[in-house]
Amino acid sequence: MKHVLFATSNRHKLQEAEIVFSEYGLNVEQWDVKRLEVQSESLEEIARISLAWLMREANPRCPFFVEDAGLFIEALNGFPGPYSSYVFSKIGNEGVLKLMDGVDNRRAVFVSVVAFTDGKEMLVFKGQASGFISHAVKGERGFGFDPIFIPEEGDGRSFAELDVREKNKLSHRARALRKLAEWLTSSKII
Amino acid sequence: MKHVLFATSNRHKLQEAEIVFSEYGLNVEQWDVKRLEVQSESLEEIARISLAWLMREANPRCPFFVEDAGLFIEALNGFPGPYSSYVFSKIGNEGVLKLMDGVDNRRAVFVSVVAFTDGKEMLVFKGQASGFISHAVKGERGFGFDPIFIPEEGDGRSFAELDVREKNKLSHRARALRKLAEWLTSSKII
Repeated sequence: MKHVLFATSNRHKLQEAEIVFSEYGLNVEQWDVKRLEVQSESLEEIARISLAWLMREANPRCPFFVEDAGLFIEALNGFPGPYSSYVFSKIGNEGVLKLMDGVDNRRAVFVSVVAFTDGKEMLVFKGQASGFISHAVKGERGFGFDPIFIPEEGDGRSFAELDVREKNKLSHRARALRKLAEWLTSSKII
Repeated sequence: MKHVLFATSNRHKLQEAEIVFSEYGLNVEQWDVKRLEVQSESLEEIARISLAWLMREANPRCPFFVEDAGLFIEALNGFPGPYSSYVFSKIGNEGVLKLMDGVDNRRAVFVSVVAFTDGKEMLVFKGQASGFISHAVKGERGFGFDPIFIPEEGDGRSFAELDVREKNKLSHRARALRKLAEWLTSSKII
């Protein structure tokens, strides 16, 4: 079975990747490594620099990838964006709902950027999921801002009300990972 | 006159530094350079890595320093902290006041970390200013969250209601810069 490393400490992200990759007969393995993340409003820049840093500092044998994601809320000028994980850890879903209190425009987009390398070239894949910020926390699955994000292609349930396979049909991350998986199966890299 | 570079694009920070340094007969000059800032909850780590990166990538002739600062609000678990500049650009003072709506504990601390190098060793100096988050925006001087921060050692005015010399008597940044200036005048570095 083809084999690739995912540099992440997030077990939810790993599980989402395992299911996407299994659809393609690929095997993904967690690489729980501390990685450099720069401050930037560009997820692609964060992912590219993180990948380049790992290539230089850790130099793993296998092909590997990193993934950076963020929730961009239109009425908040894209906040929390690339700092979603930090913002979630500090003010949580309740803090974002408070900021959105009385705000009519609930539009938001989840974006995922996957940066992959086989040790020679670097490839970047993006995925998006458009939707709306809910008026209350809904569901207990997933992680981060999943309980307040309603994907517009769904049935009204939040990401946190979907199981992983349902979320993977709609999610930004699954879309970016699927592009990587398609590229891997069509190339001779692994 | 002794001479040191301040790697910043923020003219307010530069002006605050010029006034502090002039008290010591020192001259500070702006170095408007793009610098690397990592994602970290530690201002010291951000400043140290930024300084090391500039030493390696830009290798300036003069001694120089970087400064990183943040507003840590107790009731928000330290938010916005090291990401104060980004958070300000997205949700502004009004966003933070909204998050603090109905919150009794208004305690907050502004922290500044200055990292300096003469090309050989690296020195780090910290400054703090304790205070409170106001209930409304007050004043138009300064920058960032100055209009909603009331220093506890002051007379009730916000940082944005003070002129630069008044702010420099109380501010986190002036305190960190003064430690650097004192060290510079007592050493033979410049």
